[in-house]
Amino acid sequence: MAESDIFKAQGFGQKLGLGEQPALVIVDFVNGFDDPALFGGGNIHAAIEETVLLLKTFRALGLPIAHTRTVFAADGSDRNLFMMKVPALAGMTEDNPASHIVPLLTPVAGELIVKKRDASAFLGTDFSSWLARNRVDTLIATGCTTSGCVRATVVDALGHGYRPILVTDCVGDRALGPHHASLFDMGQKYADLMTRAEVTAALTADARRAAAE
Amino acid sequence: MAESDIFKAQGFGQKLGLGEQPALVIVDFVNGFDDPALFGGGNIHAAIEETVLLLKTFRALGLPIAHTRTVFAADGSDRNLFMMKVPALAGMTEDNPASHIVPLLTPVAGELIVKKRDASAFLGTDFSSWLARNRVDTLIATGCTTSGCVRATVVDALGHGYRPILVTDCVGDRALGPHHASLFDMGQKYADLMTRAEVTAALTADARRAAAE
Amino acid sequence: MAESDIFKAQGFGQKLGLGEQPALVIVDFVNGFDDPALFGGGNIHAAIEETVLLLKTFRALGLPIAHTRTVFAADGSDRNLFMMKVPALAGMTEDNPASHIVPLLTPVAGELIVKKRDASAFLGTDFSSWLARNRVDTLIATGCTTSGCVRATVVDALGHGYRPILVTDCVGDRALGPHHASLFDMGQKYADLMTRAEVTAALTADARRAAAE
Amino acid sequence: MAESDIFKAQGFGQKLGLGEQPALVIVDFVNGFDDPALFGGGNIHAAIEETVLLLKTFRALGLPIAHTRTVFAADGSDRNLFMMKVPALAGMTEDNPASHIVPLLTPVAGELIVKKRDASAFLGTDFSSWLARNRVDTLIATGCTTSGCVRATVVDALGHGYRPILVTDCVGDRALGPHHASLFDMGQKYADLMTRAEVTAALTADARRAAAE
Repeated sequence: MAESDIFKAQGFGQKLGLGEQPALVIVDFVNGFDDPALFGGGNIHAAIEETVLLLKTFRALGLPIAHTRTVFAADGSDRNLFMMKVPALAGMTEDNPASHIVPLLTPVAGELIVKKRDASAFLGTDFSSWLARNRVDTLIATGCTTSGCVRATVVDALGHGYRPILVTDCVGDRALGPHHASLFDMGQKYADLMTRAEVTAALTADARRAAAE
Repeated sequence: MAESDIFKAQGFGQKLGLGEQPALVIVDFVNGFDDPALFGGGNIHAAIEETVLLLKTFRALGLPIAHTRTVFAADGSDRNLFMMKVPALAGMTEDNPASHIVPLLTPVAGELIVKKRDASAFLGTDFSSWLARNRVDTLIATGCTTSGCVRATVVDALGHGYRPILVTDCVGDRALGPHHASLFDMGQKYADLMTRAEVTAALTADARRAAAE
Repeated sequence: MAESDIFKAQGFGQKLGLGEQPALVIVDFVNGFDDPALFGGGNIHAAIEETVLLLKTFRALGLPIAHTRTVFAADGSDRNLFMMKVPALAGMTEDNPASHIVPLLTPVAGELIVKKRDASAFLGTDFSSWLARNRVDTLIATGCTTSGCVRATVVDALGHGYRPILVTDCVGDRALGPHHASLFDMGQKYADLMTRAEVTAALTADARRAAAE
Repeated sequence: MAESDIFKAQGFGQKLGLGEQPALVIVDFVNGFDDPALFGGGNIHAAIEETVLLLKTFRALGLPIAHTRTVFAADGSDRNLFMMKVPALAGMTEDNPASHIVPLLTPVAGELIVKKRDASAFLGTDFSSWLARNRVDTLIATGCTTSGCVRATVVDALGHGYRPILVTDCVGDRALGPHHASLFDMGQKYADLMTRAEVTAALTADARRAAAE
């Protein structure tokens, strides 16, 4: 039996579907993760370019948008276990361009910027309260890395009560093995998988329907 | 370049090491996950048998022990998104033996039993406060599934400030592909990987040292 | 200058208003808190009787309803700091009628029952994910005690992104000094204060408007 | 029966005692809360002056120290419900001196600075993981206001597994009624109350004992 058949036989992988109020999160598309010499590589840059188009759609539709950055204090005061495991994170300080969002996706005023120090956008941040306040029920997830901060954010989104939709061509990883393995796991247990084109079509159809009412 | 070399070049995968106060968590080793017709299969049963030995060590050393179970209300009142994604979870009610801890690992009085409704043992529970109260700094993680509830628990442990040690032969998954992919990811980003024999030797040496002081 | 004038001059005490999706939470109206020999007294019983009417309204309108209970394990495994501060909480075990919801407010199938071990209904529970999943934006808060579990729940509701409305005649405390002091603090900083009659009128008007659309 | 006798008869107000690893938190002693024209007044300035002495003790003993600031984004992107209730909080931006820690208590490198947007230092921050990582078991709480951010922080500390010690002369409020009411509530349910002199004596005695071993 193929591995995917085991999950199918046990009833995994049902669809959540889009809800009534989607929001976009762009996880850690910062210069340091767009640079193969730092934390980048693999299909990350291609995912950034695809996300540019999705961000445009969200802005056009006036939907809530959040960006995340990983930022640590220069004096080491907020050094944590994640940094012990990955010491180069110490360089992601406020003033280092490596921690700044890539120019292709520069936030505009009013878009939330979540500064975090762990993998998940939810952990140690007030991202969840922003989602609740905006009555978001669906979190469209993009960013990097698929097997790292994106996955941690998706698992937490599900647990916090927000349906995660993982945009398969808007997420990237420095290595393709972990990328594909995490796509599989998330599709079975935590998120719906959709391409950017599918998400765009669904959101646009929703917006048309709302305008017609 | 091999994928593991990319991570190595970027400085991932450093060791956290054992701290001063370890605790054991046994994630979801319940009958339903020991049954291939329900949520089980793969190397889960073998991991249960290996965990019996580790539990014995923790009890002998008098170290803190926690078990987790996934339990939902019979009336559907706490139905959540995880259950939408995996509908068979609805059967994991208090009275269903599928939700009970496997007989080989039956908790004894005083061991914490965390009832949860999401993947992570931390989400929607007071597991974290139990760890803090016991001044735990190292969480020895066992259970199933490696790519599901164990991984979610390990990611949260790191984020909450507790060093995760993943016991590689005491964790199992219904399919080996996801099992190995998650071992790799966790070893690079979130946890130290040790065998049961290595953990046992380290804990026993610590205990001897403490007794000698 | 009267104390309330200091708050007024600094701009405290603005109204949040009711949002689009209210839910009711009934905090710890259990037998042990309806018994002056245990944790009760003061105006708690009167608040229970008033809450019976509000619960009826919520049921008639089909709005989400949650009850909380404080429940500890009989074997002491989940003993925490709250219990160190208030040792009699150890008696609030699953089987002790003191921990059961008062007969006047017995939950019906489908109403959420949050079992907690701290003051706030949010701490160490998945109450927040239930609110998010139901797209609740307004939490109508009743229960006891005003200065204890109700206040802790209200402060957390605000922080989690749900507007708290404190129903002044549906909350009670074992002593009136703390009751009134907490009403004041919450009205200035964390919640809108409304009577049961005001909440009922507002919800009924909303329902009529929705039906007319 | 006096109100305090009701609490006594029901067993409230037991002592937690100091644990083995205390940390200091100084809540929101920023210029805006030291200014009666903004958020200050009452006994806040006196509490700041007393806290200067306690901070000196903590630095001399090399114990972990955290400061909190309330900081909102200038573009309104992180506007939340707390700000709806207290609109003047919108002015507490990164560049506004009102949000800066008072000169008497300026942090030195290595001391944690928690930027928060709600009352509690725990909500939407990674303060808890810093405490866990440092194996703190006792949180010595100072700052302002007693009935606001200090109380919310103390309630959360207890719930997260850290014993709160409220330093009665190092906390202040813009009005004395709420100050005293919250001291009473916290002493009964959430924290031990000690003066600065008592805390200093206890910490110094602990340090001497440790040095003698």
